[in-house]
Amino acid sequence: MSLALKFLSVYFFVTELSVPVNFIDEGITMDSKKSDRREFLKRGAALAGGVALGTTKTANAQLEGPESFQRGTDEIVGYGKRSRFVDSVRIPHGGRASPDAFGLDFHIATPLQDSVGVITPSSLHYMGTTRGSFIPDIDPEKHRLMIHGMVDNPLVFTMDDLKRMPSVTRLHFIECAGNRSNRRHTTIQETHGMTSCAEWTGVLLSTLLKEAGVQAGADWIVAEGVEEVKGASSIPMTKAMDDCLICYGMNGEPVRPQQGFPLRLMAPGFEGIFNVKWLRRIKVVDQYYMTYNDFGHLTQDPATAALGYQIGPKSVITHPSGGQQLPGAGFYEVSGLAWSGGGSVARVEVTTDGGRTWFDADIRGPAHKMAHTRFTFEWNWDGSPCELQSRCIDEIGQVQPSRAQAAEFWNQPPDQAPRVRGQDNSIQPWRVDGDGSIHNAIA
Amino acid sequence: MSLALKFLSVYFFVTELSVPVNFIDEGITMDSKKSDRREFLKRGAALAGGVALGTTKTANAQLEGPESFQRGTDEIVGYGKRSRFVDSVRIPHGGRASPDAFGLDFHIATPLQDSVGVITPSSLHYMGTTRGSFIPDIDPEKHRLMIHGMVDNPLVFTMDDLKRMPSVTRLHFIECAGNRSNRRHTTIQETHGMTSCAEWTGVLLSTLLKEAGVQAGADWIVAEGVEEVKGASSIPMTKAMDDCLICYGMNGEPVRPQQGFPLRLMAPGFEGIFNVKWLRRIKVVDQYYMTYNDFGHLTQDPATAALGYQIGPKSVITHPSGGQQLPGAGFYEVSGLAWSGGGSVARVEVTTDGGRTWFDADIRGPAHKMAHTRFTFEWNWDGSPCELQSRCIDEIGQVQPSRAQAAEFWNQPPDQAPRVRGQDNSIQPWRVDGDGSIHNAIA
Repeated sequence: MSLALKFLSVYFFVTELSVPVNFIDEGITMDSKKSDRREFLKRGAALAGGVALGTTKTANAQLEGPESFQRGTDEIVGYGKRSRFVDSVRIPHGGRASPDAFGLDFHIATPLQDSVGVITPSSLHYMGTTRGSFIPDIDPEKHRLMIHGMVDNPLVFTMDDLKRMPSVTRLHFIECAGNRSNRRHTTIQETHGMTSCAEWTGVLLSTLLKEAGVQAGADWIVAEGVEEVKGASSIPMTKAMDDCLICYGMNGEPVRPQQGFPLRLMAPGFEGIFNVKWLRRIKVVDQYYMTYNDFGHLTQDPATAALGYQIGPKSVITHPSGGQQLPGAGFYEVSGLAWSGGGSVARVEVTTDGGRTWFDADIRGPAHKMAHTRFTFEWNWDGSPCELQSRCIDEIGQVQPSRAQAAEFWNQPPDQAPRVRGQDNSIQPWRVDGDGSIHNAIA
Repeated sequence: MSLALKFLSVYFFVTELSVPVNFIDEGITMDSKKSDRREFLKRGAALAGGVALGTTKTANAQLEGPESFQRGTDEIVGYGKRSRFVDSVRIPHGGRASPDAFGLDFHIATPLQDSVGVITPSSLHYMGTTRGSFIPDIDPEKHRLMIHGMVDNPLVFTMDDLKRMPSVTRLHFIECAGNRSNRRHTTIQETHGMTSCAEWTGVLLSTLLKEAGVQAGADWIVAEGVEEVKGASSIPMTKAMDDCLICYGMNGEPVRPQQGFPLRLMAPGFEGIFNVKWLRRIKVVDQYYMTYNDFGHLTQDPATAALGYQIGPKSVITHPSGGQQLPGAGFYEVSGLAWSGGGSVARVEVTTDGGRTWFDADIRGPAHKMAHTRFTFEWNWDGSPCELQSRCIDEIGQVQPSRAQAAEFWNQPPDQAPRVRGQDNSIQPWRVDGDGSIHNAIA
């Protein structure tokens, strides 16, 4: 290391110079030979076994420069863009109309196969509505939220009013109850793409309800957005006073138009339809109101409603997943997402032999309540056909059911959709063929 | 509530109908009268004091519809956009060149005044480089990371290789050491906009170094990006083996080009320059190497380097902040961000009387290590001039200094920039004038 160059007189003003400074000896041999695949696999084995790598070979490489350099423009200064090499996009929810032919039904699914971490980028957050394909274009200066009905003080809030009030920031998923209605499709985007997770910021609904003064006997609220046909949901007062949020912020900026700009109700852990977008009115009422969002699947008993409206404990392996291709046997990190409407994820188990043996997966980062939680599992694939599954156990002890258990519960054949309850939280099996191709194992 | 309409026969197929369904009695009187400002202020007082509101009046309103509805298009299906009413953008770091005239110096600051929660949207993440205004346009298929030098097994990784390895996801801030060099400017974007926070996903650098086999006596690494003049940093081996990350993911999608696509080194809590963008090479070495990133401000002693490179405990009130305007006396949530290179934020204190009395602020959400942490404070402004400040205390007991303390430490007048150390983590005072206007109180 005697070649170390020391520019002891290099101070701040050097940054004004345009002369390249080569800081490090360039005499190291580099050729275009890439590290050998088998070598990497050996490293992988070492990783999984926790054993230090015994034999090695020198890997050299020509480190290529970038394709080009792009000059800063007004546009990328103000609000940056992703790389032109990244083309991950949402797609219409499987089996539904093409984007050009949207009618009332507008469901677009997030590309879970490309997901990393737990945040869904706002531009890729799933969106679902059965109330028209048109996104309301709302001027936040004119927008109001009214709270009325069985309250002592009916109140109307501007956006500025709401932003003056005590706020909270929480990570929460939203999932459409119809997620997995395409359970026989090929990719995870088709089968599970109607769930997403974001950092939400807003005012606790309880703060507003306490200001309004809820009257005795008011067991429900009805929350209404600005949609043409008045998308609305009835929510038990216990939930409204517990953890519901009136959100103006999402992933550090205003809620996106497709997610309810300027105001969205969050009912954490409840089916997606309860998280009313473009929220303009909350009426406090004494009983369940049947709304457009009720497909006949919702109980009207306030004592038991919350449990029925919750998303069950759920998980899915995002990589490797259906339609993906493993390049060969060796080490892989199996990675996936788990979540539950019942609270935080307590544990995730993974099997690589179709359910005979289960191992604890690693939870990455803190497991937030009603939030996507990233799990990983270190796996050495021996190259033979097998089946990967994951299973979520939440903090109140709920266990994600197998397909057989779910079918028994619903009294239906395993390959049938549940007819009564919208959501299907049974285990997703991915079949790994000997050629490394990944397939949905549901017949 | 006898007007409740119950459509007991409304099932799923109703969503195919285009007939609006009015679910709720529309007989409630609504006029265009907005809730009275004084009424809101009274509510605010109730909030702050925890006292139920004693007197109220009926607030009615005409709830306006949206400006229009926007039809779903291919573009917004694939990758969504923000509202046209949201215009928060980054700006060139104060006093520097306009976007059209960028030379070597390309520094753009995030709009902290508009921030909510802790995530900085990737499109608004600050960016700084003194090595040219051109952003490398890198094909991830061709990109390689080489680890060489004092290792038993020099290794070269493709992006696919790295994505097969064990990963972690962590929330971390990055802050430019030059943040606050514009300490007399008007807005927080100008004074503090060179810090941001994102959810980063990648492989622990220690995982790669262990695979390569670090040799005895290798106390440093030098990390190099693809920039024209080879932006690089020397990092102590203790830090490299502790919590440094090789990141390919940011806020749930690939790292953005301005942040180092496809690969960025994260050195959590260290000054921004250590978080090398467009990372292509890590050389394991036996001593400190002076690089282009060293402005003469970095110690070369590996035993003490880490402490010197760390961002100190820091906080700033984002709302209300310089250039903003309070509409009048009454209740406000004071909101801000705190962070420290020393670990997690343990406590934040707020004063509204220029530092005579300090109160504990509320921490919103879990305080992650080396991450922006949102704090809030419930404040009833009486309408008289005052001064707001915040103070961060981190988990290892470091306390954010006052300007006087910082000046004494640096042996300089309080209104001068520190000449030796790049960063200034002293308290930011915001002056509130009687007319509700907010000003930078630093002379």
